[in-house]
Amino acid sequence: MSKEIGITVKKGADLSEWYTQVVTKSELADYSVIKAFMVLRPYGYSLWEKIKDFLDRRLKEANHSNAYFPLFIPESYLQREAEHFKGFTPQVFWVTRAGENELSERLAVRPTSETIVNETYSKWVRSWRDLPLLINLWNTVLRAEITATRPFIRTSEFMWQEGHTVHATEEDAEKEVMMILEFYRQLIEEQMATPVLLGYKSDSEKFVGAKYTTTLEAMMPDGKAIQMGTSHHLGQNFAKPFEIKYLGQDEQTHYAWTTSWGVSWRMIGALIMLHGDDKGLVLPPRIAPIQVIIVPILYRTGDSKAIIDKANKLGDLLGKSGIVVRVDSREQYTPGWKFNEWELKGVPLRIEVGPRDLEKHQATLVRRDTSAKETVNDDAVVAEVGRLLEDIQRNLFARAKASLDASISESKEYEQFKKVIGGQGGFVRASWCGERDCEQIIKADTGATIRTLPLSNDKPSSVCIRCGKPGAKVAYFARSY
Amino acid sequence: MSKEIGITVKKGADLSEWYTQVVTKSELADYSVIKAFMVLRPYGYSLWEKIKDFLDRRLKEANHSNAYFPLFIPESYLQREAEHFKGFTPQVFWVTRAGENELSERLAVRPTSETIVNETYSKWVRSWRDLPLLINLWNTVLRAEITATRPFIRTSEFMWQEGHTVHATEEDAEKEVMMILEFYRQLIEEQMATPVLLGYKSDSEKFVGAKYTTTLEAMMPDGKAIQMGTSHHLGQNFAKPFEIKYLGQDEQTHYAWTTSWGVSWRMIGALIMLHGDDKGLVLPPRIAPIQVIIVPILYRTGDSKAIIDKANKLGDLLGKSGIVVRVDSREQYTPGWKFNEWELKGVPLRIEVGPRDLEKHQATLVRRDTSAKETVNDDAVVAEVGRLLEDIQRNLFARAKASLDASISESKEYEQFKKVIGGQGGFVRASWCGERDCEQIIKADTGATIRTLPLSNDKPSSVCIRCGKPGAKVAYFARSY
Repeated sequence: MSKEIGITVKKGADLSEWYTQVVTKSELADYSVIKAFMVLRPYGYSLWEKIKDFLDRRLKEANHSNAYFPLFIPESYLQREAEHFKGFTPQVFWVTRAGENELSERLAVRPTSETIVNETYSKWVRSWRDLPLLINLWNTVLRAEITATRPFIRTSEFMWQEGHTVHATEEDAEKEVMMILEFYRQLIEEQMATPVLLGYKSDSEKFVGAKYTTTLEAMMPDGKAIQMGTSHHLGQNFAKPFEIKYLGQDEQTHYAWTTSWGVSWRMIGALIMLHGDDKGLVLPPRIAPIQVIIVPILYRTGDSKAIIDKANKLGDLLGKSGIVVRVDSREQYTPGWKFNEWELKGVPLRIEVGPRDLEKHQATLVRRDTSAKETVNDDAVVAEVGRLLEDIQRNLFARAKASLDASISESKEYEQFKKVIGGQGGFVRASWCGERDCEQIIKADTGATIRTLPLSNDKPSSVCIRCGKPGAKVAYFARSY
Repeated sequence: MSKEIGITVKKGADLSEWYTQVVTKSELADYSVIKAFMVLRPYGYSLWEKIKDFLDRRLKEANHSNAYFPLFIPESYLQREAEHFKGFTPQVFWVTRAGENELSERLAVRPTSETIVNETYSKWVRSWRDLPLLINLWNTVLRAEITATRPFIRTSEFMWQEGHTVHATEEDAEKEVMMILEFYRQLIEEQMATPVLLGYKSDSEKFVGAKYTTTLEAMMPDGKAIQMGTSHHLGQNFAKPFEIKYLGQDEQTHYAWTTSWGVSWRMIGALIMLHGDDKGLVLPPRIAPIQVIIVPILYRTGDSKAIIDKANKLGDLLGKSGIVVRVDSREQYTPGWKFNEWELKGVPLRIEVGPRDLEKHQATLVRRDTSAKETVNDDAVVAEVGRLLEDIQRNLFARAKASLDASISESKEYEQFKKVIGGQGGFVRASWCGERDCEQIIKADTGATIRTLPLSNDKPSSVCIRCGKPGAKVAYFARSY
């Protein structure tokens, strides 16, 4: 690997350039030959696999199954739900030819699969016995991005999962939407150590075609929010045009209720920005593709074999206790070079085994999150590594939670609101009259949108931050990715 | 599930109609709204997951990593390897518009990823230290099928994996090609119980752009062969146009050597056709999504609770010993209905627990492959289930191997050759002069192609089956899917 190693810009000095360097130099991803498309490299793919495995297990425990639906959607199906079509059509890639032949109807490359899935569900759902129908798809979707793009955060093709469920009652669909939101919270907060605000989207920000959308919003170091995932109650907005009906226990025919929900590799982008530092990536242990890297330090050639043996033995021991560990005994690189590389790749814990460690029957442990260094007796290494990994996980979340909390301010006055949004940013909690027009004016004035409305649905005590009419809802405003 | 259960046509009477019914009624897959596209339903997806998990593990053990490459390939890249482009272009779906905009260069929806992958590899490979580069992609590819289509066997979009590797020497690439061929054989023969002939493709049947192609060919009950997977040595045919070069230990720049290889959900189609019977699917235990189905038989309501308890306890016990088991205690269906359904779905082993079994501390085990029935004492059930599953796996392979062997005939005379190909079919072993023209005439005369040339590369003792010139190669001819 002959490459320029190391990040050449400080995170605090130029977040955007820092981000690009971290993504590419850590070998998570690379730019593609087509603008706005990205190659997910093996290291990034194994990170995605960790994320996917956790969520896939949760979904299966809750009786969801995976399936695969075709990539193409005929234009006539996409048009079936009018609002949905209007929302997606500016971003759709269209297939118009196959080989030498012009197609009689153009095909959309899936921007999301509600239409083709619900069309198919209408054949599968007949009776109350068929419900709930709980299916998840792991695939990629395509939405042409013509403005600023950024690896993971905004790409024209992205990897995600999209869940599509059918229920007998509105309440069952509601429960599903909220259960998925909780699964997403567990994934994002407990696995990825990324604290979020949960809540509803406003009508103008909800999924096109949804009855309502719930969301998880994280805060980035530059004061901009990022949407981590969404879970939608679709009401009967798709069941009706697609004729998803079932025969109830009451022997009557009813329209069903549907939901959809998704998280994408965008979560990885947020994770990078939130936890990374001037040395590169910092990965939370629970989702790190490599949790521990062991570097043998070979100064005097006489010790080499014994040191490498010890490093390998330690690796075996940790591996057997369920820790994902790798021993880096490559000869062509110095220990210092390796330290830099594994720090750049965000491996949570490094173990150094040198001549002194060999002599003293110990190992040296270095945390990625704090750079704290400690020596541990050989027989205590496994327990200490376990303890440290848990502590790193906890610390990353606590640190991020503190900065999320610190980013939230309250505003009761529009001029001050505009100053905060235009200045340090973060979430600004304010009263809103509930009117779409007012929301649009705030966006035009400040660039901020309503990121979320709290689940509690509390009525505010003060008047709307902009228009001064009675406040209908508490809202969290922010600029966003 | 209000549906017509049960296959209404005999496998021997109408293989094609039987196949379609098995695929759809067992709920492996469904037709899509677009011709030649297919929905992989949850049951089919979990079968694919079993296949995928096995191969993914093998590849990772051999130091391969997964990655993801973009769906679209600009036309100019696809054209870079001329033969390759010519081979695929009649089947390519073209994206020409994004939203309201005409694209300046049309984009191919990937028919396979050699071009975009090798373009990217040319950036990643610099030194001999970067080699071998061993990457696998799990994705779908699209090739417009305009003639007869069939679920799993021939669809315009299919799920597969495509491996793409780079090596320092021709020999290393050769070893990779053969190692992968062996992994595929293990998957297909040992997991899927589907015996195959291994060998080379002739030049006219090889992958467009390959130096040579190796293949695995199975035989279907109608005497037609099916290609199960291929592993290609690409020589330097892609390394040169895409400029994949590395600095060797000799300090000189060398072009690298590449391979590619793939298996798809087509393997599932072959599996269905090969092992299925008049009742439906028959799945080999090692890849069955459900290995054992337990059906409580509730005649007298007094026993119900005790019988269901026993069924559940047995399920727990089997589950703990690593067997994938499900208890079907649905109340709305009769035992007979359930027997039919799980037979249709090909579950290898059924356990019945009825009043008599409860009384006598036993369970009744019924094999899907032979319908053989036996009663086993409660304390012997786990061991006997394990033994039977292994025996079913072995039996399915042995049965299929016997019919593969029986399908192979030898021919030294063209009229007789034509009669066999046009009659019972199967593989016909014959001498071939090695000329492409002769191969084409045989195809035009009989519909048969050279399915494979043995790896042993034996010279035949007799003259070419058609032209009478000296035989250059032994070839296995057959008509095929």
